[in-house]
Amino acid sequence: MKPKLTVVKLGGNCLDNQEQLHRFLTQFAKIEGAKILAHGGGKLASSLSEKLGVATLMIDGRRITDEATIDIVTMVYAGLVNKKIVAFLHTAGCIAIGLSGADGNVVHATKRNPLPIDYGLVGDPDYVNTSLLVRLLAANFTPVISPITHDGQGQLLNTNADTIAATIAAAMTEHYNVHLLFAFEKLGVLDNPDDNNSVIRQLTRSQYQQLAETGKIHSGMLPKLTAGFAALENKVDRVTITHLDALNHSTEPFTTLEL
Amino acid sequence: MKPKLTVVKLGGNCLDNQEQLHRFLTQFAKIEGAKILAHGGGKLASSLSEKLGVATLMIDGRRITDEATIDIVTMVYAGLVNKKIVAFLHTAGCIAIGLSGADGNVVHATKRNPLPIDYGLVGDPDYVNTSLLVRLLAANFTPVISPITHDGQGQLLNTNADTIAATIAAAMTEHYNVHLLFAFEKLGVLDNPDDNNSVIRQLTRSQYQQLAETGKIHSGMLPKLTAGFAALENKVDRVTITHLDALNHSTEPFTTLEL
Repeated sequence: MKPKLTVVKLGGNCLDNQEQLHRFLTQFAKIEGAKILAHGGGKLASSLSEKLGVATLMIDGRRITDEATIDIVTMVYAGLVNKKIVAFLHTAGCIAIGLSGADGNVVHATKRNPLPIDYGLVGDPDYVNTSLLVRLLAANFTPVISPITHDGQGQLLNTNADTIAATIAAAMTEHYNVHLLFAFEKLGVLDNPDDNNSVIRQLTRSQYQQLAETGKIHSGMLPKLTAGFAALENKVDRVTITHLDALNHSTEPFTTLEL
Repeated sequence: MKPKLTVVKLGGNCLDNQEQLHRFLTQFAKIEGAKILAHGGGKLASSLSEKLGVATLMIDGRRITDEATIDIVTMVYAGLVNKKIVAFLHTAGCIAIGLSGADGNVVHATKRNPLPIDYGLVGDPDYVNTSLLVRLLAANFTPVISPITHDGQGQLLNTNADTIAATIAAAMTEHYNVHLLFAFEKLGVLDNPDDNNSVIRQLTRSQYQQLAETGKIHSGMLPKLTAGFAALENKVDRVTITHLDALNHSTEPFTTLEL
Protein backbone atom coordinates (compact mmCIF):
# COMPACT_ATOMS: atom_id res chain seq x y z
CA MET A 1 0.00 0.00 0.00
CA LYS A 2 1.20 3.49 -0.79
CA PRO A 3 2.09 5.76 2.14
CA LYS A 4 -0.14 8.71 3.01
CA LEU A 5 0.59 12.27 1.83
CA THR A 6 -1.37 15.33 2.89
CA VAL A 7 -1.20 18.35 0.57
CA VAL A 8 -2.57 21.47 2.26
CA LYS A 9 -3.34 24.69 0.43
CA LEU A 10 -3.35 27.71 2.77
CA GLY A 11 -5.61 30.52 1.60
CA GLY A 12 -4.01 33.90 1.08
CA ASN A 13 -6.47 35.93 3.13
CA CYS A 14 -5.09 34.82 6.49
CA LEU A 15 -1.47 35.63 5.76
CA ASP A 16 -1.62 39.19 7.07
CA ASN A 17 -2.90 38.01 10.45
CA GLN A 18 0.21 36.64 12.17
CA GLU A 19 -1.62 35.12 15.12
CA GLN A 20 -3.99 33.19 12.89
CA LEU A 21 -1.14 32.13 10.61
CA HIS A 22 0.90 30.77 13.52
CA ARG A 23 -2.14 28.90 14.89
CA PHE A 24 -2.63 27.32 11.47
CA LEU A 25 1.04 26.41 11.05
CA THR A 26 1.17 24.85 14.53
CA GLN A 27 -1.74 22.59 13.51
CA PHE A 28 -0.15 21.88 10.13
CA ALA A 29 3.12 20.81 11.79
CA LYS A 30 1.17 18.18 13.77
CA ILE A 31 -0.16 16.40 10.67
CA GLU A 32 1.35 12.92 10.76
CA GLY A 33 3.26 11.47 7.85
CA ALA A 34 4.44 13.14 4.68
CA LYS A 35 3.00 16.58 4.02
CA ILE A 36 3.36 19.49 1.63
CA LEU A 37 2.11 23.05 2.14
CA ALA A 38 1.15 25.27 -0.80
CA HIS A 39 0.31 28.89 -0.11
CA GLY A 40 -0.88 32.05 -1.84
CA GLY A 41 -0.31 35.56 -0.63
CA GLY A 42 -3.09 37.66 -2.16
CA LYS A 43 -3.64 40.69 0.03
CA LEU A 44 0.02 41.29 0.84
CA ALA A 45 0.89 41.49 -2.86
CA SER A 46 -1.95 43.94 -3.50
CA SER A 47 -0.84 46.05 -0.55
CA LEU A 48 2.78 46.18 -1.79
CA SER A 49 1.53 47.00 -5.31
CA GLU A 50 -0.44 49.90 -3.89
CA LYS A 51 2.57 51.24 -1.97
CA LEU A 52 4.64 51.05 -5.16
CA GLY A 53 1.93 52.66 -7.28
CA VAL A 54 1.30 49.54 -9.39
CA ALA A 55 -2.37 48.91 -10.23
CA THR A 56 -3.96 45.61 -9.15
CA LEU A 57 -6.47 44.07 -11.57
CA MET A 58 -8.28 40.77 -10.92
CA ILE A 59 -10.65 38.78 -13.16
CA ASP A 60 -12.56 35.81 -11.70
CA GLY A 61 -10.19 35.67 -8.73
CA ARG A 62 -7.07 35.64 -10.90
CA ARG A 63 -4.54 38.46 -10.95
CA ILE A 64 -3.55 40.17 -14.21
CA THR A 65 0.26 40.05 -14.07
CA ASP A 66 2.43 42.58 -15.94
CA GLU A 67 6.25 42.94 -15.64
CA ALA A 68 6.03 45.06 -12.48
CA THR A 69 3.50 42.71 -10.91
CA ILE A 70 5.50 39.51 -11.50
CA ASP A 71 8.39 41.14 -9.60
CA ILE A 72 6.03 42.07 -6.77
CA VAL A 73 4.40 38.64 -6.45
CA THR A 74 7.81 36.96 -6.65
CA MET A 75 9.03 39.16 -3.79
CA VAL A 76 5.93 38.62 -1.67
CA TYR A 77 5.05 34.97 -2.38
CA ALA A 78 8.46 33.35 -2.95
CA GLY A 79 10.29 35.73 -0.59
CA LEU A 80 8.46 37.23 2.38
CA VAL A 81 5.52 34.87 2.84
CA ASN A 82 7.39 31.67 1.99
CA LYS A 83 10.36 32.36 4.25
CA LYS A 84 8.23 33.55 7.20
CA ILE A 85 6.22 30.32 6.98
CA VAL A 86 9.39 28.23 6.74
CA ALA A 87 11.05 29.99 9.70
CA PHE A 88 7.95 29.52 11.86
CA LEU A 89 7.50 25.84 10.95
CA HIS A 90 11.01 25.12 12.26
CA THR A 91 9.88 26.35 15.70
CA ALA A 92 7.01 23.84 15.55
CA GLY A 93 9.38 20.93 14.90
CA CYS A 94 8.76 20.76 11.16
CA ILE A 95 11.86 20.87 8.95
CA ALA A 96 10.40 23.02 6.20
CA ILE A 97 12.04 23.77 2.86
CA GLY A 98 10.55 26.61 0.84
CA LEU A 99 10.43 26.23 -2.93
CA SER A 100 9.02 28.21 -5.80
CA GLY A 101 8.06 26.26 -8.89
CA ALA A 102 11.37 27.31 -10.48
CA ASP A 103 13.45 25.72 -7.71
CA GLY A 104 14.67 22.34 -8.86
CA ASN A 105 12.07 22.71 -11.63
CA VAL A 106 9.46 21.59 -9.09
CA VAL A 107 6.55 23.11 -11.02
CA HIS A 108 7.07 23.95 -14.69
CA ALA A 109 4.29 25.96 -16.34
CA THR A 110 3.18 27.30 -19.71
CA LYS A 111 2.23 30.94 -20.13
CA ARG A 112 -1.50 31.11 -20.56
CA ASN A 113 -2.89 31.84 -24.01
CA PRO A 114 -3.71 35.57 -24.16
CA LEU A 115 -7.11 34.72 -25.68
CA PRO A 116 -9.87 35.16 -24.61
CA ILE A 117 -8.41 37.07 -21.62
CA ASP A 118 -4.78 38.21 -21.51
CA TYR A 119 -3.69 37.52 -17.94
CA GLY A 120 -0.11 38.53 -18.76
CA LEU A 121 2.71 36.61 -17.04
CA VAL A 122 0.43 33.91 -15.69
CA GLY A 123 1.23 30.23 -16.06
CA ASP A 124 -0.67 26.97 -15.97
CA PRO A 125 1.34 24.07 -14.48
CA ASP A 126 2.23 21.32 -16.93
CA TYR A 127 4.91 19.32 -15.08
CA VAL A 128 5.72 18.47 -11.46
CA ASN A 129 9.19 17.20 -10.52
CA THR A 130 7.83 14.49 -8.25
CA SER A 131 11.24 12.83 -7.84
CA LEU A 132 12.61 15.91 -6.03
CA LEU A 133 9.53 16.07 -3.79
CA VAL A 134 9.70 12.32 -3.04
CA ARG A 135 13.41 12.67 -2.22
CA LEU A 136 12.79 15.58 0.16
CA LEU A 137 9.83 13.89 1.85
CA ALA A 138 11.85 10.68 2.31
CA ALA A 139 14.53 12.75 4.05
CA ASN A 140 11.85 14.15 6.39
CA PHE A 141 11.68 17.63 4.85
CA THR A 142 8.33 19.37 4.41
CA PRO A 143 8.16 21.28 1.11
CA VAL A 144 6.46 24.68 1.31
CA ILE A 145 5.51 25.77 -2.20
CA SER A 146 4.95 29.35 -3.32
CA PRO A 147 2.79 29.97 -6.41
CA ILE A 148 5.56 31.23 -8.68
CA THR A 149 6.46 28.90 -11.54
CA HIS A 150 8.76 29.16 -14.55
CA ASP A 151 8.50 28.36 -18.24
CA GLY A 152 11.98 26.86 -18.65
CA GLN A 153 12.94 29.87 -20.82
CA GLY A 154 13.90 32.08 -17.87
CA GLN A 155 10.49 33.64 -17.36
CA LEU A 156 8.84 33.49 -13.93
CA LEU A 157 5.06 33.10 -14.04
CA ASN A 158 2.35 33.87 -11.53
CA THR A 159 0.25 30.77 -10.93
CA ASN A 160 -2.93 30.18 -9.00
CA ALA A 161 -1.99 28.52 -5.70
CA ASP A 162 -5.09 26.30 -5.65
CA THR A 163 -4.14 25.01 -9.08
CA ILE A 164 -0.56 24.33 -7.94
CA ALA A 165 -1.76 22.44 -4.86
CA ALA A 166 -4.15 20.33 -6.94
CA THR A 167 -1.54 19.68 -9.65
CA ILE A 168 1.06 18.57 -7.10
CA ALA A 169 -1.51 16.42 -5.31
CA ALA A 170 -2.47 14.68 -8.57
CA ALA A 171 1.15 14.17 -9.66
CA MET A 172 2.09 12.64 -6.29
CA THR A 173 -0.62 9.95 -6.52
CA GLU A 174 1.96 7.86 -8.35
CA HIS A 175 3.83 7.48 -5.05
CA TYR A 176 1.30 8.24 -2.32
CA ASN A 177 -2.36 8.03 -1.28
CA VAL A 178 -3.05 11.75 -1.35
CA HIS A 179 -5.45 13.87 0.70
CA LEU A 180 -5.78 17.39 -0.71
CA LEU A 181 -7.06 19.90 1.83
CA PHE A 182 -7.95 23.51 1.03
CA ALA A 183 -7.82 25.56 4.26
CA PHE A 184 -9.24 29.07 4.27
CA GLU A 185 -11.23 31.59 6.30
CA LYS A 186 -14.63 29.90 5.99
CA LEU A 187 -15.88 26.53 7.25
CA GLY A 188 -16.23 25.12 3.75
CA VAL A 189 -18.30 25.74 0.64
CA LEU A 190 -21.38 27.65 1.82
CA ASP A 191 -24.85 27.44 0.31
CA ASN A 192 -25.35 31.00 1.55
CA PRO A 193 -22.04 32.93 1.54
CA ASP A 194 -23.23 35.05 4.50
CA ASP A 195 -24.20 32.09 6.69
CA ASN A 196 -21.36 30.03 8.18
CA ASN A 197 -23.97 27.43 9.21
CA SER A 198 -24.82 26.65 5.59
CA VAL A 199 -21.78 24.41 4.93
CA ILE A 200 -22.38 22.00 2.07
CA ARG A 201 -20.94 18.79 3.54
CA GLN A 202 -20.75 16.91 0.28
CA LEU A 203 -20.46 18.79 -2.98
CA THR A 204 -20.74 16.97 -6.30
CA ARG A 205 -19.49 18.38 -9.55
CA SER A 206 -23.01 18.86 -10.91
CA GLN A 207 -24.09 20.72 -7.76
CA TYR A 208 -20.97 22.88 -8.12
CA GLN A 209 -21.83 23.72 -11.74
CA GLN A 210 -25.35 24.75 -10.69
CA LEU A 211 -24.05 26.94 -7.87
CA ALA A 212 -21.51 28.58 -10.20
CA GLU A 213 -24.19 29.28 -12.80
CA THR A 214 -26.48 30.92 -10.25
CA GLY A 215 -23.55 33.02 -8.99
CA LYS A 216 -23.67 31.54 -5.47
CA ILE A 217 -20.07 30.42 -5.99
CA HIS A 218 -17.84 33.07 -7.52
CA SER A 219 -14.42 34.84 -7.46
CA GLY A 220 -11.62 32.86 -5.80
CA MET A 221 -13.89 29.87 -5.10
CA LEU A 222 -14.08 29.10 -8.83
CA PRO A 223 -10.40 28.16 -9.37
CA LYS A 224 -10.36 26.39 -5.98
CA LEU A 225 -13.26 24.09 -6.84
CA THR A 226 -12.20 23.59 -10.46
CA ALA A 227 -8.78 22.55 -9.14
CA GLY A 228 -10.31 20.34 -6.47
CA PHE A 229 -12.50 18.40 -8.90
CA ALA A 230 -9.59 18.04 -11.33
CA ALA A 231 -7.52 16.51 -8.51
CA LEU A 232 -10.31 14.00 -7.73
CA GLU A 233 -10.43 13.03 -11.39
CA ASN A 234 -6.68 12.53 -11.32
CA LYS A 235 -6.65 9.86 -8.62
CA VAL A 236 -6.38 12.05 -5.51
CA ASP A 237 -8.10 10.02 -2.76
CA ARG A 238 -9.87 12.78 -0.93
CA VAL A 239 -10.43 16.51 -1.41
CA THR A 240 -11.76 18.57 1.50
CA ILE A 241 -12.34 22.28 2.05
CA THR A 242 -12.16 23.46 5.62
CA HIS A 243 -11.53 26.33 8.02
CA LEU A 244 -7.85 26.97 8.68
CA ASP A 245 -8.41 26.36 12.39
CA ALA A 246 -9.94 22.93 11.69
CA LEU A 247 -7.21 21.06 9.82
CA ASN A 248 -7.83 17.88 11.79
CA HIS A 249 -11.53 17.85 10.79
CA SER A 250 -12.49 17.05 14.38
CA THR A 251 -14.71 19.88 15.57
CA GLU A 252 -16.27 21.88 12.73
CA PRO A 253 -18.26 20.89 9.65
CA PHE A 254 -16.36 20.96 6.35
CA THR A 255 -16.92 20.21 2.67
CA THR A 256 -15.91 17.01 0.91
CA LEU A 257 -15.86 17.04 -2.89
CA GLU A 258 -17.34 14.11 -4.81
CA LEU A 259 -17.33 13.41 -8.51
CA MET B 1 40.35 11.75 -2.95
CA LYS B 2 37.41 14.06 -2.26
CA PRO B 3 35.49 15.40 -5.28
CA LYS B 4 35.78 19.05 -6.28
CA LEU B 5 33.25 21.68 -5.21
CA THR B 6 33.25 25.28 -6.42
CA VAL B 7 31.45 27.80 -4.22
CA VAL B 8 30.94 31.10 -6.02
CA LYS B 9 29.84 34.31 -4.33
CA LEU B 10 28.26 36.76 -6.75
CA GLY B 11 28.61 40.39 -5.72
CA GLY B 12 25.42 42.39 -5.30
CA ASN B 13 26.44 45.35 -7.45
CA CYS B 14 25.92 43.55 -10.75
CA LEU B 15 22.42 42.31 -10.01
CA ASP B 16 20.63 45.32 -11.45
CA ASN B 17 22.40 44.89 -14.81
CA GLN B 18 20.52 42.01 -16.42
CA GLU B 19 22.91 41.62 -19.36
CA GLN B 20 25.95 41.36 -17.08
CA LEU B 21 24.08 39.01 -14.74
CA HIS B 22 23.13 36.66 -17.58
CA ARG B 23 26.71 36.68 -18.91
CA PHE B 24 27.94 35.74 -15.44
CA LEU B 25 25.34 33.00 -14.96
CA THR B 26 26.10 31.50 -18.38
CA GLN B 27 29.75 31.20 -17.30
CA PHE B 28 28.76 29.87 -13.88
CA ALA B 29 26.60 27.14 -15.47
CA LYS B 30 29.67 25.92 -17.36
CA ILE B 31 31.74 25.24 -14.23
CA GLU B 32 32.34 21.50 -14.17
CA GLY B 33 31.51 19.35 -11.19
CA ALA B 34 29.56 20.24 -8.07
CA LYS B 35 28.91 23.94 -7.56
CA ILE B 36 27.02 26.27 -5.26
CA LEU B 37 26.15 29.91 -5.92
CA ALA B 38 25.72 32.40 -3.07
CA HIS B 39 24.47 35.88 -3.89
CA GLY B 40 23.77 39.23 -2.29
CA GLY B 41 21.38 41.85 -3.61
CA GLY B 42 22.61 45.18 -2.23
CA LYS B 43 21.44 47.95 -4.51
CA LEU B 44 18.06 46.45 -5.30
CA ALA B 45 17.17 46.28 -1.60
CA SER B 46 18.23 49.89 -1.08
CA SER B 47 16.20 50.96 -4.08
CA LEU B 48 13.06 49.18 -2.81
CA SER B 49 13.65 50.66 0.66
CA GLU B 50 13.74 54.11 -0.87
CA LYS B 51 10.51 53.55 -2.83
CA LEU B 52 8.83 52.39 0.40
CA GLY B 53 10.23 55.28 2.44
CA VAL B 54 12.41 53.06 4.65
CA ALA B 55 15.84 54.55 5.48
CA THR B 56 18.99 52.59 4.50
CA LEU B 57 21.90 52.73 6.95
CA MET B 58 25.22 50.91 6.39
CA ILE B 59 28.25 50.58 8.70
CA ASP B 60 31.48 49.04 7.34
CA GLY B 61 29.59 47.54 4.39
CA ARG B 62 26.95 45.93 6.59
CA ARG B 63 23.31 46.96 6.56
CA ILE B 64 21.50 47.98 9.75
CA THR B 65 18.36 45.83 9.66
CA ASP B 66 15.15 46.84 11.44
CA GLU B 67 11.75 45.09 11.17
CA ALA B 68 10.81 46.87 7.93
CA THR B 69 14.24 46.19 6.43
CA ILE B 70 14.27 42.44 7.15
CA ASP B 71 10.97 42.19 5.23
CA ILE B 72 12.50 44.15 2.34
CA VAL B 73 15.71 42.12 2.12
CA THR B 74 13.75 38.87 2.42
CA MET B 75 11.56 39.96 -0.51
CA VAL B 76 14.49 41.11 -2.64
CA TYR B 77 17.20 38.53 -1.80
CA ALA B 78 15.18 35.37 -1.12
CA GLY B 79 12.39 36.31 -3.55
CA LEU B 80 13.14 38.42 -6.59
CA VAL B 81 16.91 38.00 -7.00
CA ASN B 82 17.07 34.34 -6.02
CA LYS B 83 14.20 33.24 -8.28
CA LYS B 84 15.38 35.28 -11.27
CA ILE B 85 18.81 33.66 -10.97
CA VAL B 86 17.28 30.20 -10.63
CA ALA B 87 14.95 30.68 -13.62
CA PHE B 88 17.84 31.87 -15.81
CA LEU B 89 20.20 29.05 -14.76
CA HIS B 90 17.65 26.50 -16.01
CA THR B 91 17.98 28.02 -19.49
CA ALA B 92 21.74 27.46 -19.28
CA GLY B 93 21.30 23.76 -18.50
CA CYS B 94 21.89 24.09 -14.77
CA ILE B 95 19.17 22.60 -12.53
CA ALA B 96 19.21 25.28 -9.88
CA ILE B 97 17.39 25.16 -6.56
CA GLY B 98 17.10 28.43 -4.64
CA LEU B 99 17.36 28.30 -0.87
CA SER B 100 17.47 30.83 1.91
CA GLY B 101 19.28 29.82 5.07
CA ALA B 102 15.92 28.98 6.65
CA ASP B 103 15.06 26.42 3.96
CA GLY B 104 15.84 22.96 5.24
CA ASN B 105 17.79 24.77 7.97
CA VAL B 106 20.63 25.14 5.46
CA VAL B 107 22.23 28.06 7.30
CA HIS B 108 21.30 28.62 10.93
CA ALA B 109 22.54 31.87 12.48
CA THR B 110 22.71 33.71 15.77
CA LYS B 111 21.55 37.31 16.06
CA ARG B 112 24.60 39.49 16.44
CA ASN B 113 25.33 40.96 19.87
CA PRO B 114 24.00 44.56 19.86
CA LEU B 115 27.31 45.74 21.40
CA PRO B 116 29.40 47.57 20.30
CA ILE B 117 27.18 48.26 17.25
CA ASP B 118 23.51 47.25 17.11
CA TYR B 119 23.01 45.96 13.57
CA GLY B 120 19.44 44.88 14.41
CA LEU B 121 18.12 41.71 12.76
CA VAL B 122 21.52 40.62 11.50
CA GLY B 123 22.83 37.10 12.01
CA ASP B 124 26.18 35.38 12.02
CA PRO B 125 26.06 31.81 10.66
CA ASP B 126 26.78 29.10 13.22
CA TYR B 127 25.62 25.91 11.46
CA VAL B 128 25.43 24.62 7.89
CA ASN B 129 23.20 21.64 7.03
CA THR B 130 25.84 20.03 4.82
CA SER B 131 23.87 16.78 4.54
CA LEU B 132 21.07 18.56 2.63
CA LEU B 133 23.60 20.26 0.34
CA VAL B 134 25.48 17.00 -0.27
CA ARG B 135 22.18 15.26 -1.05
CA LEU B 136 21.16 17.96 -3.55
CA LEU B 137 24.59 18.07 -5.22
CA ALA B 138 24.62 14.27 -5.51
CA ALA B 139 21.26 14.49 -7.32
CA ASN B 140 22.78 17.03 -9.74
CA PHE B 141 21.03 20.10 -8.33
CA THR B 142 22.91 23.39 -7.99
CA PRO B 143 21.97 25.21 -4.76
CA VAL B 144 21.59 28.98 -5.10
CA ILE B 145 21.77 30.52 -1.64
CA SER B 146 20.30 33.90 -0.65
CA PRO B 147 21.75 35.68 2.38
CA ILE B 148 18.70 35.33 4.64
CA THR B 149 19.19 33.00 7.60
CA HIS B 150 17.06 32.11 10.63
CA ASP B 151 17.68 31.70 14.35
CA GLY B 152 15.55 28.57 14.85
CA GLN B 153 13.11 30.67 16.91
CA GLY B 154 11.14 31.88 13.89
CA GLN B 155 13.17 35.04 13.27
CA LEU B 156 14.66 35.67 9.85
CA LEU B 157 18.06 37.38 9.92
CA ASN B 158 19.95 39.39 7.34
CA THR B 159 23.40 37.90 6.84
CA ASN B 160 26.43 39.04 4.89
CA ALA B 161 26.55 37.01 1.69
CA ASP B 162 30.38 36.83 1.68
CA THR B 163 30.23 35.35 5.16
CA ILE B 164 27.58 32.81 4.09
CA ALA B 165 29.65 31.75 1.07
CA ALA B 166 32.78 31.33 3.20
CA THR B 167 30.91 29.48 5.96
CA ILE B 168 29.34 27.06 3.48
CA ALA B 169 32.70 26.56 1.74
CA ALA B 170 34.39 25.73 5.06
CA ALA B 171 31.61 23.39 6.20
CA MET B 172 31.67 21.50 2.89
CA THR B 173 35.42 20.68 3.19
CA GLU B 174 34.34 17.60 5.13
CA HIS B 175 33.02 16.16 1.86
CA TYR B 176 34.79 18.07 -0.93
CA ASN B 177 37.96 19.83 -1.99
CA VAL B 178 36.56 23.32 -2.06
CA HIS B 179 37.45 26.32 -4.22
CA LEU B 180 35.82 29.52 -2.94
CA LEU B 181 35.55 32.22 -5.57
CA PHE B 182 34.35 35.77 -4.93
CA ALA B 183 33.18 37.31 -8.21
CA PHE B 184 32.50 41.02 -8.38
CA GLU B 185 32.83 44.16 -10.52
CA LYS B 186 36.62 44.57 -10.17
CA LEU B 187 39.49 42.38 -11.31
CA GLY B 188 40.51 41.49 -7.77
CA VAL B 189 41.88 43.24 -4.69
CA LEU B 190 43.45 46.46 -5.97
CA ASP B 191 46.45 48.21 -4.48
CA ASN B 192 45.00 51.42 -5.86
CA PRO B 193 41.17 51.26 -5.87
CA ASP B 194 41.04 53.58 -8.90
CA ASP B 195 43.50 51.54 -11.01
CA ASN B 196 42.23 48.24 -12.41
CA ASN B 197 45.83 47.42 -13.36
CA SER B 198 46.96 47.32 -9.72
CA VAL B 199 45.57 43.85 -8.95
CA ILE B 200 47.36 42.23 -6.01
CA ARG B 201 47.89 38.71 -7.37
CA GLN B 202 48.69 37.14 -4.04
CA LEU B 203 47.40 38.68 -0.85
CA THR B 204 48.58 37.43 2.55
CA ARG B 205 46.73 38.07 5.76
CA SER B 206 49.41 40.43 7.08
CA GLN B 207 49.36 42.47 3.85
CA TYR B 208 45.56 42.62 4.15
CA GLN B 209 45.77 43.89 7.70
CA GLN B 210 48.20 46.64 6.62
CA LEU B 211 45.96 47.68 3.72
CA ALA B 212 42.91 47.76 6.01
CA GLU B 213 44.74 49.90 8.58
CA THR B 214 45.83 52.42 5.97
CA GLY B 215 42.24 52.57 4.63
CA LYS B 216 43.19 51.24 1.17
CA ILE B 217 40.75 48.39 1.76
CA HIS B 218 37.42 49.47 3.20
CA SER B 219 33.60 49.10 3.12
CA GLY B 220 32.33 45.88 1.56
CA MET B 221 35.86 44.54 0.92
CA LEU B 222 36.40 44.14 4.68
CA PRO B 223 33.81 41.39 5.30
CA LYS B 224 34.75 39.76 1.97
CA LEU B 225 38.42 39.40 2.88
CA THR B 226 37.77 38.55 6.53
CA ALA B 227 35.46 35.79 5.29
CA GLY B 228 38.00 34.65 2.67
CA PHE B 229 40.84 34.28 5.16
CA ALA B 230 38.55 32.51 7.64
CA ALA B 231 37.67 30.01 4.89
CA LEU B 232 41.37 29.37 4.18
CA GLU B 233 41.96 28.74 7.87
CA ASN B 234 39.06 26.30 7.84
CA LYS B 235 40.51 23.94 5.23
CA VAL B 236 39.14 25.52 2.05
CA ASP B 237 41.71 24.65 -0.65
CA ARG B 238 41.74 27.84 -2.59
CA VAL B 239 40.21 31.30 -2.25
CA THR B 240 40.24 33.66 -5.24
CA ILE B 241 38.73 37.07 -5.94
CA THR B 242 37.98 37.84 -9.53
CA HIS B 243 35.95 39.82 -12.02
CA LEU B 244 32.51 38.36 -12.69
CA ASP B 245 33.36 38.02 -16.37
CA ALA B 246 36.49 35.98 -15.57
CA LEU B 247 35.16 32.99 -13.61
CA ASN B 248 37.44 30.58 -15.46
CA HIS B 249 40.55 32.58 -14.48
CA SER B 250 41.85 32.28 -18.04
CA THR B 251 42.22 35.83 -19.35
CA GLU B 252 42.39 38.46 -16.62
CA PRO B 253 44.57 38.82 -13.51
CA PHE B 254 42.87 37.97 -10.21
CA THR B 255 43.72 37.78 -6.51
CA THR B 256 44.56 34.60 -4.62
CA LEU B 257 44.46 34.73 -0.83
CA GLU B 258 47.27 33.13 1.19
CA LEU B 259 47.59 32.67 4.92
